[in-house]
Amino acid sequence: MKIAVMGYGTVGSGVVEVIETHRDVIAKRIGGESLELQYILDLRDFPDDPHSDKFTKDFNDILNDPEIKVVAEAMGGVNPAFDFTMKLLKAGKAVVTSNKELVAQKGLELLKAAEEGNTNYLFEASVGGGIPIIRPMAQCLAGNNIEGVAGILNGTTNFILTKMIEEDMSFETALKLAQDNGYAEKDPTADVEGHDACRKVCILASLAFGKHVYPNQVATEGISNISLEDVSYISSVNGVIKLLGQIKYIDENRIAAFVSPAVVYNGSQLASVRDVFNAILVRGDAVGDVCFYGRGAGKLPTASAVVADMVDCAKHVDRRKIFGWGEGEEDYVVDYKSTIEMPFYVRAKMSENQVKTIFHNVKFLSRKGQPSDEVAFITDCMTENKLMKKLENAEVLNIIKVTNY
Amino acid sequence: MKIAVMGYGTVGSGVVEVIETHRDVIAKRIGGESLELQYILDLRDFPDDPHSDKFTKDFNDILNDPEIKVVAEAMGGVNPAFDFTMKLLKAGKAVVTSNKELVAQKGLELLKAAEEGNTNYLFEASVGGGIPIIRPMAQCLAGNNIEGVAGILNGTTNFILTKMIEEDMSFETALKLAQDNGYAEKDPTADVEGHDACRKVCILASLAFGKHVYPNQVATEGISNISLEDVSYISSVNGVIKLLGQIKYIDENRIAAFVSPAVVYNGSQLASVRDVFNAILVRGDAVGDVCFYGRGAGKLPTASAVVADMVDCAKHVDRRKIFGWGEGEEDYVVDYKSTIEMPFYVRAKMSENQVKTIFHNVKFLSRKGQPSDEVAFITDCMTENKLMKKLENAEVLNIIKVTNY
Repeated sequence: MKIAVMGYGTVGSGVVEVIETHRDVIAKRIGGESLELQYILDLRDFPDDPHSDKFTKDFNDILNDPEIKVVAEAMGGVNPAFDFTMKLLKAGKAVVTSNKELVAQKGLELLKAAEEGNTNYLFEASVGGGIPIIRPMAQCLAGNNIEGVAGILNGTTNFILTKMIEEDMSFETALKLAQDNGYAEKDPTADVEGHDACRKVCILASLAFGKHVYPNQVATEGISNISLEDVSYISSVNGVIKLLGQIKYIDENRIAAFVSPAVVYNGSQLASVRDVFNAILVRGDAVGDVCFYGRGAGKLPTASAVVADMVDCAKHVDRRKIFGWGEGEEDYVVDYKSTIEMPFYVRAKMSENQVKTIFHNVKFLSRKGQPSDEVAFITDCMTENKLMKKLENAEVLNIIKVTNY
Repeated sequence: MKIAVMGYGTVGSGVVEVIETHRDVIAKRIGGESLELQYILDLRDFPDDPHSDKFTKDFNDILNDPEIKVVAEAMGGVNPAFDFTMKLLKAGKAVVTSNKELVAQKGLELLKAAEEGNTNYLFEASVGGGIPIIRPMAQCLAGNNIEGVAGILNGTTNFILTKMIEEDMSFETALKLAQDNGYAEKDPTADVEGHDACRKVCILASLAFGKHVYPNQVATEGISNISLEDVSYISSVNGVIKLLGQIKYIDENRIAAFVSPAVVYNGSQLASVRDVFNAILVRGDAVGDVCFYGRGAGKLPTASAVVADMVDCAKHVDRRKIFGWGEGEEDYVVDYKSTIEMPFYVRAKMSENQVKTIFHNVKFLSRKGQPSDEVAFITDCMTENKLMKKLENAEVLNIIKVTNY
């Protein structure tokens, strides 16, 4: 089966590599046929690349070639990936992607175009890199009402937090190390401020509950405010800080979805996820907690998930997958700050007595070198709005949500 | 869509319950249609059951009803489940099952019958209860050469080992507790001696590498020889003992597959799997390690996986899933004892000097109350046959494999 790859960056070149190095296993999975690379679309020149005869700068070469049945989109970003993908799908060509930004923004439109073209739009690689999560969410958990999802969805921030937790490294030093190792971009904003995790939350929420959730509906907070002091207090109660994407089912018409640092207690499957690894925990009413763990990014892990989607398209060329992903609604994602109750970790310049007066029942934490005018504590369950009201006259240093995963 | 359930034990009654309590989410997943229970096949009487009008003792009622499109087989055992399933598949009715014994023994024949009947035979619930693992293995990891699989596949034994590790409980007391909690059968042999895990290894190996592996090809050892002394020695090097099913790729024509207790070091995703939970770790050459975690047994978790398969059948009524599961071969599963090198934990009545003379390089372990004539140590990598030869004159108390997962 003839295929094309759009975008020859990290993931795109990885896709080409996996197709070439895995001919046997791919042919076995498809039932004898192989994936034959016909085009690589990229505006840049790669004169020394062994595939130089495959390169094109003209998208129409792919669109107008009737032999091309499956296309991997690894361009990233919304434009021109959106335009290209729409045209391919409407022309009946299957498209697979690792482009979480595009799926989060335009997933519904693209799935509709796939329906129109009687073909498939698959995006296993868009969340959790090589970890199988899209199919399990869409298919395997169909006998459950999903109650919640919590995921460590960004490898870069998890690497930074791991260094802070295990090696007492400052945020800045850990970020620099992540950049030196190639885990973080020169401009690390998308990772560090939670935007990348936010896109993945949108995709997971849309799949789990069948209505499109858009990035601007998801309250998003990054890890740049996390200090070693917070890490130290929380480790004293056998907890760690993770950047979590969380989704909570409220009722048929409402969910909560947010990205933020969160306290996870040791013993949770999420607590032992270290370095650049990702994990996604899904809580179903029948199955209980299931958790999916692996490398959430990286050239070959991500590429292997893209290729698996291509294999699936090649195996099922005129059979469509139905995701049940419908229109979103403005009020569908609630303001979690006024609705979801949870415990909070608070660090503040206060006395224990002041804290007791305001909160009655809290658990105080301690750390080495704790200044006499600093307290840290974990509250009972309450909404974030209620917490902020209680703390309105206090000099707060940090607040972190505490999860029940 | 009209459906039938065969076998009204724990799983079968759970399937009926999940179908009834999850009408909305099921209809949403299928695209409007619901699963309508028409028959329950069981030889026993359930006079007070609310579904008493659905019961039949005659399998032909199901086979001959042209409206029945999907059947859940939750009878367990090979006979008569095999005969019934063959007839249903050949008649073009989709069958889904949690019956690992049947899939492990007869999976290939049943998949062929499904092909003949142009229908599906699905068995997500046969391994890992509610944990999605069959689809991820068959589909999502298609861009990988799978190098190995290691799984905690039996909840009962993991519960017993957890109690031994965390509460210093003896094997006998922990087994009794598992029985009292309903985790272990009155006759616990199938769990404790590893037969249940062995069946799941067969299914995973058949899926991962495309050739049927039969239970009699898998060397199987249970946990009844594990003592608190072993637990204690191994905890001194930050390890735990787990009952693991392991599969290792050797080459196109050979794999190793075995079930045995194994030392897993803390930090591994398998080490933190406690109580009745299961986890399956798959190592792919592109994706690295991915791990799937959740409840591996229990009424509702298992039933929810059966129902998800029914939903899949209902959604794709005339589209077949291709598993690429072919004939097995006698020499395909090698004698791991002569081929696979790994470190071993050894406890013996020897002196450290005797050990040093035989092994040169080992790591000695210690425990509280260690008798002066007892040693425990971890060897370098070697085959089990080589180890046994070295130890032929020693008074060995226990030997446990050490994993690299």
